[in-house]
Amino acid sequence: MCGIAGIAGIHDIRQALTTALERLEYRGYDSAGMAIHSAGGIDVRKSVGSVATLAATLPPEPVPGSGIAHTRWATHGAPSTRNAHPHLSYDASIAIVHNGTIRNIAELRGELDDLGVSAVSDTDSEVLAHLVAWHRGQGADTETALRLALARVDGDYAVLVIAADRPGTLVAAADGSPLLIGVDGRAVHIASDRAALASECTHYSHVLDGEVVTITTAVPAGRDWKPASRESGWQGKGSYPNFLLKEINDQPRTTRAAISALFSPIAPGSPADWSATLDRPSIKRVRFLGCGSSYYAGEVSASFVEQLARVPAAAEPAAEFIQRRPVVEPDCLYVLISQSGETLDTLHAHRYLRRHPVQTLSFVNVVGSSLDRDSGASIHLRADKEVSVASTKVVTNMQIAGLALAAWLARADYGARSAELLELDLALPILPTILADLLAGKDAEIRAAAESVHAYRSMYYLGRGASWPVAREGAQKIKEISYIHAEAYQSSELKHGPLALVDPEHVSVVVAANDDSGNQDATLVSQIQARAGNVVVFSQHQTCEFGATTIRLPAIHPLLDHIVMGVALQLFAYHTATILDRDVDRPRNLAKSVTVE
Amino acid sequence: MCGIAGIAGIHDIRQALTTALERLEYRGYDSAGMAIHSAGGIDVRKSVGSVATLAATLPPEPVPGSGIAHTRWATHGAPSTRNAHPHLSYDASIAIVHNGTIRNIAELRGELDDLGVSAVSDTDSEVLAHLVAWHRGQGADTETALRLALARVDGDYAVLVIAADRPGTLVAAADGSPLLIGVDGRAVHIASDRAALASECTHYSHVLDGEVVTITTAVPAGRDWKPASRESGWQGKGSYPNFLLKEINDQPRTTRAAISALFSPIAPGSPADWSATLDRPSIKRVRFLGCGSSYYAGEVSASFVEQLARVPAAAEPAAEFIQRRPVVEPDCLYVLISQSGETLDTLHAHRYLRRHPVQTLSFVNVVGSSLDRDSGASIHLRADKEVSVASTKVVTNMQIAGLALAAWLARADYGARSAELLELDLALPILPTILADLLAGKDAEIRAAAESVHAYRSMYYLGRGASWPVAREGAQKIKEISYIHAEAYQSSELKHGPLALVDPEHVSVVVAANDDSGNQDATLVSQIQARAGNVVVFSQHQTCEFGATTIRLPAIHPLLDHIVMGVALQLFAYHTATILDRDVDRPRNLAKSVTVE
Repeated sequence: MCGIAGIAGIHDIRQALTTALERLEYRGYDSAGMAIHSAGGIDVRKSVGSVATLAATLPPEPVPGSGIAHTRWATHGAPSTRNAHPHLSYDASIAIVHNGTIRNIAELRGELDDLGVSAVSDTDSEVLAHLVAWHRGQGADTETALRLALARVDGDYAVLVIAADRPGTLVAAADGSPLLIGVDGRAVHIASDRAALASECTHYSHVLDGEVVTITTAVPAGRDWKPASRESGWQGKGSYPNFLLKEINDQPRTTRAAISALFSPIAPGSPADWSATLDRPSIKRVRFLGCGSSYYAGEVSASFVEQLARVPAAAEPAAEFIQRRPVVEPDCLYVLISQSGETLDTLHAHRYLRRHPVQTLSFVNVVGSSLDRDSGASIHLRADKEVSVASTKVVTNMQIAGLALAAWLARADYGARSAELLELDLALPILPTILADLLAGKDAEIRAAAESVHAYRSMYYLGRGASWPVAREGAQKIKEISYIHAEAYQSSELKHGPLALVDPEHVSVVVAANDDSGNQDATLVSQIQARAGNVVVFSQHQTCEFGATTIRLPAIHPLLDHIVMGVALQLFAYHTATILDRDVDRPRNLAKSVTVE
Repeated sequence: MCGIAGIAGIHDIRQALTTALERLEYRGYDSAGMAIHSAGGIDVRKSVGSVATLAATLPPEPVPGSGIAHTRWATHGAPSTRNAHPHLSYDASIAIVHNGTIRNIAELRGELDDLGVSAVSDTDSEVLAHLVAWHRGQGADTETALRLALARVDGDYAVLVIAADRPGTLVAAADGSPLLIGVDGRAVHIASDRAALASECTHYSHVLDGEVVTITTAVPAGRDWKPASRESGWQGKGSYPNFLLKEINDQPRTTRAAISALFSPIAPGSPADWSATLDRPSIKRVRFLGCGSSYYAGEVSASFVEQLARVPAAAEPAAEFIQRRPVVEPDCLYVLISQSGETLDTLHAHRYLRRHPVQTLSFVNVVGSSLDRDSGASIHLRADKEVSVASTKVVTNMQIAGLALAAWLARADYGARSAELLELDLALPILPTILADLLAGKDAEIRAAAESVHAYRSMYYLGRGASWPVAREGAQKIKEISYIHAEAYQSSELKHGPLALVDPEHVSVVVAANDDSGNQDATLVSQIQARAGNVVVFSQHQTCEFGATTIRLPAIHPLLDHIVMGVALQLFAYHTATILDRDVDRPRNLAKSVTVE
C-alpha cells in the first residue's frame, strides 16, 4: 500500500488529489482511490488500475473541501476495487488511507471478530479503519482513537483519516513510513513524499515517527518548517514510444553529467563535496546495501572498489542485512543505494546503522528524499527524473558513483596506484560517446538477437568474476519487463547442476568481458551447445570465436567495460519485451519505489 | 570428457574395461567406448548412453590383451557416437581417450587444417589424436609424439594412447587431471581414480603432473607405490525404486554416523583427529569453497560458523575464487568441500591455496580421493557411497561437518558461550530420530504438495537469513532432477523486481524457519497471493497461519532446523521429479563428479 495524500481546504479537491496521486504513482499503480467530505458524509471513489482510470470516473464539476487519496501496490489481497483504498469503517463514520504493512494482522482480525466486526476486504489497512471507528464508538475523539488503534499495530505506517462528522479536518500519523505536511498560504497538503506536495507549497515539515497530527486549513502550529525548493520540471518522453527507451537513450547525456560532477576536482558534486564528512584513514572495508537493481549496482561497485582501491568490499540486500542482526564494523564504510531515496528496506538499514558510530554514504537520485535528507553524506546520481519502473539510467549512474568512490578511496591512500587512476581519468570522458555509438550502432543487431530468443520462457545469464553482477542485473531487467524466467549464474557453476535445464527450449546469454577467460567462455558455449541449448554471446573479447550468435561490444577500459555491457543488456531486455508487446514502462506487479517491507 | 581407463595384458580385456567403466560412470554417462589392440590394428567400439548399452554390443568371447576406454560427459559436441571416445587419428594409426578440456582448441584446429588434417568430430580430444599421429608420421615414437602434442595444449588433461603398431603397450600422460596406475601382480591398470582400478590391485601410484609414462605388462619401474586398501563394498538400492530415494532415507543412519564421529571427544574422526594440524588462535575468518551443492553447503556452514563461533565466514564457488585472483588472507581458514574429492574446480582452488602459507581443511566423502590425499587436514563425511547424481545424504553431512567446525571454533576460544554449545550437544543426538520421523511421517503430505505443483514450469524458492542457502540448495535440487526452472531469492528481494514473474502459472516455495520473522513470512505469502501466484510453505513456525498449503516441520534447535528443512526439500524435489517420471538417479546433462573446468 503505497502512496497517500491529503488536502485540507482547497477549491477543487478532486482535481488537487488527482494531481497528487499522479505524482505518487511511482509507488504503485494497482488501484487508486479518494475519499472527500461531502454533504451526506464521505464520498469514496475507487478504481482498479492507474490514476487516469480513476480520474475518468470523477464528476467534472469542482468541489471545494478536504479529502484523502491513495495509489496502491498490492501486498494483502489482489488488486481489486474492494481492496482499493480509501477504506470505510464498518459504520461508514471514517475513511482511511494507509501506506505500510501491518505485521500482526491475523491477531488484530481475531480481536475485531471478537468485537463482532468483520472485514470486507483482504487488506491489512481496512482493519485499522474498523479499529479507529470502534474506539470512536467508545467515546474517543478521532485523534485519540487513531492513537489507540496504532498502539496495537506491529509494523510501519503512514496513515490519513477523515471522519464524516468532522468536515475540513484530517488526522495524520506516521511511524517508519515518510509523511510530509506542506503549506501554500491557503490550503494544507500532506503526502508520502515531497514530489507529491503541490508545487505551490512554500514550506514543508515532516511528520515525526510516532506523531499524530490533526490538520485543518490553518497552518499547523509548533512545527519545524523548511523552505520547499521548486521541483525540477517534469520531462516528457519526447519522440520515444515509451519512457524506458527514452531513458536508455538518455544515458550518453546522464553519464556525462555524472562523470563531470563526480570526478571533477571543483564542480558541485565533486569528491571534495560529498567526501567532506568522511574520514578516509578509518575506512578499511566497504559494504553496499540496496534492493533489487540497486543491490546489483552495489555488487558492481564493490568489484570496482576491490579492483581499483584494493579495499575489501561486498554488497548485500538491505533487508537481509537487517535480518541477520549484523555485527556493525566500525572500520567499514556503509553505502546505501536507492534511486528514490524512499525504499523502505534501505531506510530501515540506514536507521539501524545510525544507532552505531559508523560512517555512511548514500547514492540517491532524488535530491531531498528521505534517505538523502537523513544521510550525513550523499552522492547525487544526476540522472534526472526516471519514470519507467525498470531502472536503467539511474542504475548506470549508481555504477559510476561506485567508481567515483573507488577512485576517491584509491586516490586518498594509494598514490602508488596513480597509473591506474590516470588510465581511468583518460578513459572516462570517452564513455558517453561509446554509449551513444552502442545505442545507435548496435540497436538493430541486438534487436535481431532479441527476435531470436523472445519466444523462450526460460533463460540463463552467465557471467564470471566482475561480470557476474552485470549478468544478475541483466537477468533482473529482462525478468521485470518481459516476464521471461531469466536467472543469472556464475559461468563456472553451470555444469555443477543448473545445466540440467539446458535443452532446445532454453536460452543462455553469455556475458563475456574482455579479460583472459576468452577460452573458458568458448568452452562454456560448447558445453551448452553440446546439450542443444541456444546461446547468445555479448562479447568484449576482440578475437574469440564462439560459434554462436555474438554481439561484439567495444572494450575501452577493464572497469568501464562492465558499464557498457550493462547498457547493451538493457537494450536487449527492452527489445525482447517490446517484441512480446509488454507494457515496458509499467510492468505487472511492480512499483517504481517499494515503500513497504 | 570424463572417466578414462586402460589395461595392459589381461585375459579378458573387454570385460575388464567394462568393469572399470562402470565404476567411472559417476563422471559422465553421455556415451562410452573402448579401443583394444586387435590383429588388424585397433578395434574401436562406441555407443551413446550408459556403459550397459556399450557392453550389450560387445562380442561375448573373451579376448586377451590391452586397451583403453572412456565414459563421457559432453563438453565439446553433442552426445553422439561420432563424438564418443576413443578417437582414432586420421590415419587410424593410434587411438586416444582424454579427460579434460583443451582451451586453445580453435587455434589447434587451425594448425591442423594448415597441415591438411580435418577433424571429423566436434570434440576437442580428437585434435589430440591427430596431433600425435602427425608427429609420429614425422618419425617420433608414440611417447615423444604425445609429449610434442601436449606441449601445444592449454588446459588440463589425463590421456591414454594406444598405437596399432605397438600391441600390449599404452602411453599415459596427465596434467591437472588425476590418473593412477595400479598393479595386481599380473596386469597393469590405469584409471582416472582409485575406485575404478580393479579390486585386485595391491598397489597404486599417481601419474605426476606433466609426466608421460609408457605402460606394458611389466610393473613400471622407478615409481612411488602405495598399498591399495580394499574398496568398501558396493551397496545396492535394496527395496527402493532408485538410489536417490534410498539415499534420502539413508540419512537417519548417515547423520548418526557423522555426528558420532565428528562431535565425539575420542572416536576416529573426532575434532582431536582432524584439527590436529590446525592452529586455532590464528584463525580470524573462514571461507568455504565448493561447487554446486557443495557451495550451498558451504553457505549453510558459513552461517553456522558466524552464529555459533561469531567468526566472520563466507562461501564462494571454487572456480569464481580462482577467477578473481583473490588476496589470500593469512588469518583465514579455507575449507574445500567436495563429495568425490575429484571436482576439478575445487582441486584447482586447493592447488592455488597451497602456494600460500594458509591453513586449509577439506570436507570429503571419498576417503583417499585427490582432495583428501592432498589436504593437510580432512573431515571425512561418513555418508558411505553416494550413487545418485543429485547429492542428498552427503550434502546433509557437509552441513554437519560445518557445524562440527563451528563448534570446534567456538569451543576452542569462546568458553563463555558454553551454554549454546551445551544446547547443541543436547539436541544433536535427536537429529537422526527427527529425520526418521520426518521421512516416514511427512512423506504423504510432501508428495501431495509435489502433486499440486509438478505441472508448473517456473518456481521461486524464498528464504531469508540462514534459510537463504537452504532455499538455494532446495531450488538446485528440483532443477537438477525435475528440470523445472526453480530459482532461489532472498524473501526480501521478491518485491524489488522478481515479483513480475508471479502469476497463476508460477509457484513460490516459502522456506520459513522458526525465527522471529513469522509475520514477515505471512506478509510475503500475501504479496504473492495478491498476484494470484501459487504458494507452498515449508514452515517451522509453530503458530503462524499462512492461508496457503503449509507443510509443518518440527523445530528442535535454531541451527539444526536448517538441516531438517533441507531434508524436507529433498523429499519435495524427489516427489516432484518422480511424478514427472524423470530418471532421478541420472538426470540429463549432468555428471556425479565434474572433472573438467
